[in-house]
Amino acid sequence: MAYELFYWPGIQGRGEFVRLALEAAGAAYVDVARERGSGRGVKALMAMLDGEAGPRPPFAPPFLRDGDILVSHVANILLYLGPRLSLAPADEGARAFAHGLQLTINDLIAEVHDTHHPISHQRYYEDQKREAKARAAAFLSERAPKYLGYFERVIAGNPAGKAHAVGDKLTTVDLSLFQIWVGLAYAFPRAFAGADKAYPALAALAAKAAAQTNVAAYLASARRIPFNESGIFRHYPELDQAPAKAGRRNG
Amino acid sequence: MAYELFYWPGIQGRGEFVRLALEAAGAAYVDVARERGSGRGVKALMAMLDGEAGPRPPFAPPFLRDGDILVSHVANILLYLGPRLSLAPADEGARAFAHGLQLTINDLIAEVHDTHHPISHQRYYEDQKREAKARAAAFLSERAPKYLGYFERVIAGNPAGKAHAVGDKLTTVDLSLFQIWVGLAYAFPRAFAGADKAYPALAALAAKAAAQTNVAAYLASARRIPFNESGIFRHYPELDQAPAKAGRRNG
Repeated sequence: MAYELFYWPGIQGRGEFVRLALEAAGAAYVDVARERGSGRGVKALMAMLDGEAGPRPPFAPPFLRDGDILVSHVANILLYLGPRLSLAPADEGARAFAHGLQLTINDLIAEVHDTHHPISHQRYYEDQKREAKARAAAFLSERAPKYLGYFERVIAGNPAGKAHAVGDKLTTVDLSLFQIWVGLAYAFPRAFAGADKAYPALAALAAKAAAQTNVAAYLASARRIPFNESGIFRHYPELDQAPAKAGRRNG
Repeated sequence: MAYELFYWPGIQGRGEFVRLALEAAGAAYVDVARERGSGRGVKALMAMLDGEAGPRPPFAPPFLRDGDILVSHVANILLYLGPRLSLAPADEGARAFAHGLQLTINDLIAEVHDTHHPISHQRYYEDQKREAKARAAAFLSERAPKYLGYFERVIAGNPAGKAHAVGDKLTTVDLSLFQIWVGLAYAFPRAFAGADKAYPALAALAAKAAAQTNVAAYLASARRIPFNESGIFRHYPELDQAPAKAGRRNG
């Protein structure tokens, strides 16, 4: 039976981290909100958020249904799917590390979202632009280098080699790192000019994940909608800035 | 062999969610930064962040060492410890739901932290007070009710009864919900006056978790340091506000 993925239809968003794993594995799945006609699919999604699916409502999309089991939250879904899609490491210590990386990626995504919604999730970006400029500046000078530098160290230090973040084969972590890599380049093209030189192992890992046969086919398909200014990674040029010079904080 | 918990010594912070689980289970553990003398313990913690523990460095505290295995990130540590401490549900669907709740709690904690650090984690609260006021107002009127209302629905709808969030016995989720309950009351006493009436199942669950024998002993001990203005839950009266009237958004 196919997995059912519930996520908003018009954006890559958090759902994309799940789609990449399903696509990489060639798994059968239904992207409910997109495939059942936007109206009916979104209605089904909202009904489940409202608790009509039973006593274990999800808090927010994305969530995944596998028969009787409902799993919500990106990192939780990838934890569930990883072993089933052969996209998880084999041993317990490696799995715990992979999940920790997935959770760190999750934190990065939340901070990216807050660069354009630093005050309120319910107000538009346009109503918090001044604060967004300050938040984005801090993110680009303080936070993004901390996260990306960490991932670079992890990959460069992987005893099994730098092709993957954990172990010696493709995992959900590699796919998620690819997604944040291209997402950041879309959202902050000036700040990320030259990132491939600053983080060469991460850049190479992202390229390798994108080149995996199923992933490459997906990225070339209509199912991979382009980034846009409704998702997590948004290109607002006023929030972008030239990269920091080495040793000096930007801005 | 005792678990080793690595976290900053002077605050409850994120580490407290782990301490509560270890204490509830009566598990043997070393709170490294506190017990080895603050200087040496923090030095050990920083060394591990710098990668001196091997090829799988944690991104940030808290992290837990169990023999050869290192686990970082609160929800990941609780996922690892839950079954070992008999604080996790038995079946896979319930465990996936519990982990999803733990991740939602994690998101709430991050938003609480952002009420006093909405622009930059590296600047002091005093340097971002104006934005903090706006962020805290949005948090109290929009986000906290969404999270707490969700937890209330989950608990009230638990087929095994309202004593616990998932299943019929104490889990890490109950302990974490207790912690956010008392933390929010500490940080926002005006906004949370009357919360026990707005969220009665959650209030009762928090009280029950606190009354568990080991937890009660811990809370009465010197190991439970008080909340303070260096942690996640901080009492800044200027960020607090009277609770919203029913049906009207506050402020």
